[in-house]
Order: sequence, then structure tokens, then C-alpha cells
Amino acid sequence: MHSTSDILDIRQVEKSKIDQVDFDNLAFGKNYADHMMVCDYKDGAWQKPKILPYGPMEFEPSAKVFHYGQAVFEGMKAFKDENNKVWLFRPEENFNRINISSKRMAIPEFPKDYFFAALETLLKLDEKWVHPGDGNSLYIRPFVIASENGVSASPSNEYKFMIICCPAKAYYNSPVKVLVADHYSRSADGGVGFAKAAGNYGAQFYPTNLANEKGYQQIIWTDSNSHKYLEEAGTMNLFFRINDKLITAPTSDRILDGVTRKSIIDLARHQGVEVEVRKITVEELVSAAVDGSLKEIFGTGTAATIAFIEGFEYADKYHDLPQIENPYSLRFKKGLQDIQYNRAEDPFGWRYEVKLD
Amino acid sequence: MHSTSDILDIRQVEKSKIDQVDFDNLAFGKNYADHMMVCDYKDGAWQKPKILPYGPMEFEPSAKVFHYGQAVFEGMKAFKDENNKVWLFRPEENFNRINISSKRMAIPEFPKDYFFAALETLLKLDEKWVHPGDGNSLYIRPFVIASENGVSASPSNEYKFMIICCPAKAYYNSPVKVLVADHYSRSADGGVGFAKAAGNYGAQFYPTNLANEKGYQQIIWTDSNSHKYLEEAGTMNLFFRINDKLITAPTSDRILDGVTRKSIIDLARHQGVEVEVRKITVEELVSAAVDGSLKEIFGTGTAATIAFIEGFEYADKYHDLPQIENPYSLRFKKGLQDIQYNRAEDPFGWRYEVKLD
Repeated sequence: MHSTSDILDIRQVEKSKIDQVDFDNLAFGKNYADHMMVCDYKDGAWQKPKILPYGPMEFEPSAKVFHYGQAVFEGMKAFKDENNKVWLFRPEENFNRINISSKRMAIPEFPKDYFFAALETLLKLDEKWVHPGDGNSLYIRPFVIASENGVSASPSNEYKFMIICCPAKAYYNSPVKVLVADHYSRSADGGVGFAKAAGNYGAQFYPTNLANEKGYQQIIWTDSNSHKYLEEAGTMNLFFRINDKLITAPTSDRILDGVTRKSIIDLARHQGVEVEVRKITVEELVSAAVDGSLKEIFGTGTAATIAFIEGFEYADKYHDLPQIENPYSLRFKKGLQDIQYNRAEDPFGWRYEVKLD
Repeated sequence: MHSTSDILDIRQVEKSKIDQVDFDNLAFGKNYADHMMVCDYKDGAWQKPKILPYGPMEFEPSAKVFHYGQAVFEGMKAFKDENNKVWLFRPEENFNRINISSKRMAIPEFPKDYFFAALETLLKLDEKWVHPGDGNSLYIRPFVIASENGVSASPSNEYKFMIICCPAKAYYNSPVKVLVADHYSRSADGGVGFAKAAGNYGAQFYPTNLANEKGYQQIIWTDSNSHKYLEEAGTMNLFFRINDKLITAPTSDRILDGVTRKSIIDLARHQGVEVEVRKITVEELVSAAVDGSLKEIFGTGTAATIAFIEGFEYADKYHDLPQIENPYSLRFKKGLQDIQYNRAEDPFGWRYEVKLD
């Protein structure tokens, strides 16, 4: 740990909590690995990052994050292969994206060497928290919060960049039904929809609760201007298979540039599947559902990996999706996981080995 | 304090910090009154509210407010008159609005008796923090944050409703120059713009920084679809005086239903000024600036009270506003403050006396 100890201050736990965790019955996001990273921004600079035992921290009630939602996050996963090697998946993408999100939220960008030193050190210390086996992973949550005290509506002068980790199984276990939005919206042109800004998520809870009451687990968001164009599902990008062609919406300032999304585009093309990145209307989706050319819808995201969608409602009409043989969603999920778990060649250079010694 | 002690648990400070505060040189939002209110929501109910010494609190790094911005707030002021009586201004409006905001953010609504018992008790204990004199007030910040630990993107099962207070002088002391938005947006149709949701504010910091670099203190937001319609300034609603007529945009799901805004509408009409609540385009504003019929622009909000705008930029052209005699902004500010400080009749029933004994 010579190279990272120059970069980080490390204080290890006295005793791991790992024995208290039932890995067979994980409630996602309820158990945290032993260590976390905390790095303070003050006096105009990111200070030396600290690796500490995971635990509560003190905040004043006037901390800006509580009042103005100046906060961004990322989601990543570490995977363990059959030889107990630990792998990350395209971590540079997450690093780049958290800084893109930060910039839009007027948060100072974070240094790359701090980010990777923290990741490597956390995964080395908490390597036992990465369980092998299909669908198992250590979910990694980098996030940044405005920590200055002050209730005036202006950017914070102090921040905390933190990384916490929690063991995860597959996020959505069963197929989901979705509701196509025709009233509520997720983001505006010129807004923060492309960023993983905290407030984008809280703002979806109420419309999602309403969808839940109607029997739908998720919402497919449409553009806020016309509700004509299909966008994303809030925690997932979306793919539509019409006949044998895969269609996904282009990213924009309203749509998150998902790492899983772009990986699936590459993987599908690599497997010879035609992918169109273009705007797709609700009307086209409904027509394709009615004439039978709509074969699949699935969501992609780090937490969800690939979520199968079994049907959607739009304008009070429910459209069931057909059950098909050898669906793309399953093929791509396997293709992706084979790379993530180091079970297959990685022609794309996506895997990132974490050095454990 | 008989009636409130049934409702609240009270723990007072041992020694007030008020001697440490320089009331002549207040940095807004940097000094907090001695006490705060904290009320926990858990097991499906708001628990007994507590009045405690203001101070730091422990949060786990996984608390949902840090990740999903599930948080709302209010802004209120208490005023002291020449007889040392303390007054609130239309507190019921703020109570109603925080619950409207909470509902949109999937936060449970707060009981009215808790809210008013907490306000009355805080103002009684911290009465000395309400300084008399024009422009002086005790700014009151009720807010609610999602406090459950968990990094899954779903509504929190635990919340904290808190009230903190800080002494304030007038928020914007000098006239401001504003930039009319033609790229960035504040809110979407079907979004959370009408709510005082935390993320609405953080999302404005970056575009506002860009405006600051061009010499503008604030942005006038336009609708995200077309950027044709004038909306609000992010922390203020806006009024435009064309000749002798006052125009303000109607509230919508994108625009905050400001308490000062609606008070100014009533006050202006009471003084015989014609007020049109209607959509107003950027084009109309620019035309009126060019032909000289635009007499005033001002912003209204609890923090700002009334902020005079001395000019605006749109499409790279700066439009200066004329200096006029006896402007509406000054008249209405005085009219409002005369009511707030108990210096005039209150035909509207807006004043709310805080019982200090």
C-alpha cells in the first residue's frame, strides 16, 4: 500500500462487521462495508482523502445539502471472479461522469488520482465484501455533498466527496411493468437531467408512488414539452426491440449518459445486432405493440444491470409484451456479465483489475 | 408554556450565544439562534417535536437526503415592532406550502399544531434574536429531510422536520442586474418547480455563476419549452410595470406560489394599481424596454422582500431601466413592511402576533 498511503490517510476498523451480514438475504443498501472514503473540499482545494471506518458523521442543520440539494452521485460495481480476483467495470466512465455532474451543480471537480487511489484502497481493505457468484457484487456509491453551513441560496464553499460500499444482489429480480408518463416529467431542456444530481431522484418518488398504486413498478419518462418522445426510466436507460432492431434514445441534456447503455450498444453491434440511436415516439411504440413487431423492452443501469419489462401502460391501455425465445435482454445480460465476472474475452477493454496485493 | 409543553419536549440552552453576534454586520445565514426544533418521522408517524439547543447532528453517510435530494424547505420572517411585540407574516401560507412541497416530494405532511407550537415556542425562547428596526428580522427556516439510511432510489421511511432561525437584514441591499435565460432552465412542465424542493435551488447555481461572470446577479427564468415566457428568478417572483400597469406571471407547476408575490398583488390592487396576472413574453418585455413603456421590474420573496432590478440582458443586449419618481417597488415595499412591522393598519389580516408570555 506504498503508493496509495502517500495519497490517502488510512484508519482501519478494529473488527470487521462482515460476520453480521446475511449475504443470502441482502436488502439492497442496508449493509455497508467496513470502510468509507471521505475527502473534504475547503479553502479552494480538495484536502487529503481519508479512509475511515464506515459510520455516522456530524453535520450542522444549516449544511447546504439539506436546503439546496447541491449533491451528485455515481453508482459502480465490483465483481469477483472464480479465482478471487476483483474487477471494476469501466470505472473511468464513472469518474468522468461524476465530474460532469459536479460541474453542472457548481461543485468543484475531483482529482482522478484521489478517486482511483480511494477505490483501490477500499476494495483491498474490504475485499471480503465482494462476494463471487452471478448477480453478486459490491455496489460502490461515490457522492459529493455541499457541507458548508449557511441558508443563503448560493453555492457552497465546502464539500465532502465520499465513497461508501454495500454488498448487492441483482437489483430488480422479476420483470417489471412500466407506465409511460403523460403528465409528470423528470427533466427540462437546459436542466440537470443528464447529471446524476440528487434532486432528480427525489423528484420522481411521488409520480412513481402513483404508478405503483396502479400496479407499475417504474415510469418511462417522456419529454416534458410534448410527452411524445420516450426518454429514460429514471434509474435506467431504455432499449426497444422492434422486430430484430434495437432502438434507444440519444442522450441529451435531459437523459443520463448511462455506462450500461453505451456498453449494451457496443455489445449488441459486436454481436451483429442492428442498433439505432434515435428519437423514438410513444406512438411508434404503441403501434409496434399493436402490430406485434415490438418484441422486447428492457432497462439498463448499473444497479439494475438489465431489467426485463413485461408490459407497459399508455393512455389507460395496457400492452403486454410477447414471451420470446432467446431474447436480446438475456443474451446481452449474459454477455455483459461474462465480461464483468471475467468469464469471457473483453474485446472492448472494459474490465479493470483491482490489485489486491 | 403550558399548552405547548404538552405538544413539545423542550431542552433550553445553558447560555445564550447572542452576545457573540454582531447585529450591525450580519452575514446572512451564518449565525443561528439558540434553539431549533427537530421532529422525527418514523414508524409511519411524526413523533413528539423537540426544542433543542441549535447544534450539529449525526447522520449516516447513506442518509437518503444526501443521495436523492428528498428535501423541502420554507422561508419565513419574524418582525419586532416598537413595543417589542413579535409578529409573523401569513405563517399559515408557509405551513400550507411546505406540505404542498412535501406531497410532491413524497414526504409525509406535517401536523399544523406541531408547526405552530414549534414556531411560537422558538420565538418565545429566542425573542431577543428578533431585532427591531426596518429591514431587521429573524429569518425562520423550516425544512424536511429524508433521514433513512439506504442507497436504493426509493422514498425514505424516516424524515426530520426541523426549524432553525437566523437573524437577517435585507437580503439584496443594492439594485440587481438580471440575465434573461435563453438556454438553461429551472423547471419542466410536470416537474417540481412549484415546490420549494431542495434540488431546484442547487440546479440554478451553475447557470447563475455563468451569469455572475457576465456581471448579472440573478437570472430571469423562462419556460423550458420555448424560452419565450418570463417565469421567476429562482428565489423571487417577478413583477413588470409597463406604463402604470403591473404584470406578473400566473403560478403553474413550474412557478412558486410566492407569499410575497400574492401579497403584493393584493396590496397593489388595494392601492388602486391595475395588476394583470397573465403570461408575459420576453418579446413584450424587450419591446416595452425599447419604447420606454417599461418602468420597473422587481422581484418579490421572503428573503429579498422586494428587490429592485436596474436592468436586464437578453440576446446579448442590455436594457437599462429608467430611474423614476416614487416607484411602485418602493411604495409596495413600504406598504408591506408597514404591515409586517405593525406600523399600519392590516386590512388583509396578514399579521400574526406571537404570544411572548
